[in-house]
Amino acid sequence: MTSRGQFITFEGTEGVGKSTQLANAADTLKTLDVDYIVTREPGGTPMAESIRDLLLAPRDEPVNDMTELLLMFAARAQHLHTRILPELEAGRWVLCDRFTDATFAYQGGGRGVPTERIAQLESLVQGSFRPDHIILLDAPVETGMTRARHRGELDRFEREAVAFFRRIRQTYLDRATADPVRYHIVDAGQSLEMVSRDVVNLIDGLVHRS
Amino acid sequence: MTSRGQFITFEGTEGVGKSTQLANAADTLKTLDVDYIVTREPGGTPMAESIRDLLLAPRDEPVNDMTELLLMFAARAQHLHTRILPELEAGRWVLCDRFTDATFAYQGGGRGVPTERIAQLESLVQGSFRPDHIILLDAPVETGMTRARHRGELDRFEREAVAFFRRIRQTYLDRATADPVRYHIVDAGQSLEMVSRDVVNLIDGLVHRS
Ligand SMILES: Nc1ncnc2c1ncn2[C@@H]1O[C@H](COP(=O)(O)OP(=O)(O)OP(=O)(O)O)[C@@H](O)[C@H]1O
Ligand SMILES: Nc1ncnc2c1ncn2[C@@H]1O[C@H](COP(=O)(O)OP(=O)(O)OP(=O)(O)O)[C@@H](O)[C@H]1O
Ligand SMILES: [Mg+2]
Ligand SMILES: [Mg+2]
Repeated sequence: MTSRGQFITFEGTEGVGKSTQLANAADTLKTLDVDYIVTREPGGTPMAESIRDLLLAPRDEPVNDMTELLLMFAARAQHLHTRILPELEAGRWVLCDRFTDATFAYQGGGRGVPTERIAQLESLVQGSFRPDHIILLDAPVETGMTRARHRGELDRFEREAVAFFRRIRQTYLDRATADPVRYHIVDAGQSLEMVSRDVVNLIDGLVHRS
Repeated sequence: MTSRGQFITFEGTEGVGKSTQLANAADTLKTLDVDYIVTREPGGTPMAESIRDLLLAPRDEPVNDMTELLLMFAARAQHLHTRILPELEAGRWVLCDRFTDATFAYQGGGRGVPTERIAQLESLVQGSFRPDHIILLDAPVETGMTRARHRGELDRFEREAVAFFRRIRQTYLDRATADPVRYHIVDAGQSLEMVSRDVVNLIDGLVHRS
């Protein structure tokens, strides 16, 4: 009998190193001979990726906060039920670039949508399902912004001001403090080598514990 | 001081005559010199129309019921807050081809999503906002299907079986029975001339009452 896989999410503000460390974690799992898939939010299935495109496209029409929130959860419902849960049940680990913590941080902390509304949608879509582990890559928002500066066109979120991202970072830190078992804060301000070493150790510990 | 406009929605199963009667109601308002706009759901703004396209496109990927429900309400949040409410506040009447009753009927009655989940999203997005009047065009589902048969490619909903639409019709009728003040049932099985006459009388009554 295969045991259920672990659901590990990577969180943090723009350009802090989430995608880099997710790839690093994947390499670590491969070395340790653990079956896994990598995915991201919003997205992860063709339909959810179309919702992602709707969400990220800069547009003239002002986007209502509730519209943004509901689209995030619509993409999540599709991703969770048609992909994440079946993979976990098949015994594979799922490494996911952002998940519901990002909604609390961006739509809650960033946009100011009341936390209870997000929590209500979280239960509606996820029931009691939560990530097994959340790897929070934390660094001053300027660090990530400098790292990500070399990108092309900015999406609808990347066009926001620094204060927006400061509130997001703070929301992530508050959530990590409130749930120290599930959250693992990694100092993403360090050199790539040091951050990678921390993440390898973390994943290695989770595999040997599971 | 202009008084707030009335929000009138047109409901019923496929091909029953909603769009035809909405145009008829619009002509009646014009004759009576009442300012109005016509719109539809899902849709009504460029972003909400993009969500509509996502919802209606036939696709290989099975669409999760919760995804469909959240997309409907995402489109509705955008339409309501960026268009319907401002128009009503400006004193214009809003004639809308389908609204939240269609969600209760299609996602609830049709797909079997529990009513309480839909009601929870309704309050989240609308607060206590509800249509002032709901014109339910009621006829056996086969009548509408025969009328609509001449269309091109079927969308994701039109591909459903007759039993799906029977459950939808029944949900509409149950809702109308529960709220006879707001709901106006029109016998849509009659000739176009008779249905149109009923709708003209109804709109005329609402204008003279308002
Ligand atoms: N610790 C580090 N020190 C210096 N540069 C780094 C570090 N980690 C990642 N980078 C570089 O910073 C850039 C952004 O990294 P990455 O794309 O992984 O961030 P991200 O958090 O996924 O960004 P986004 O929020 O845009 O998805 C990349 O060019 C990456 O190579
Ligand atoms: N009472 C009627 N008798 C006969 N034909 C009618 C009647 N009402 C409408 N029709 C015709 O039936 C067809 C469908 O009408 P209409 O498009 O208004 O329906 P609908 O409810 O808006 O359909 P849909 O659910 O596809 O949007 C049209 O060709 C219309 O002219
Ligand atoms: Mg990334
Ligand atoms: Mg129509």
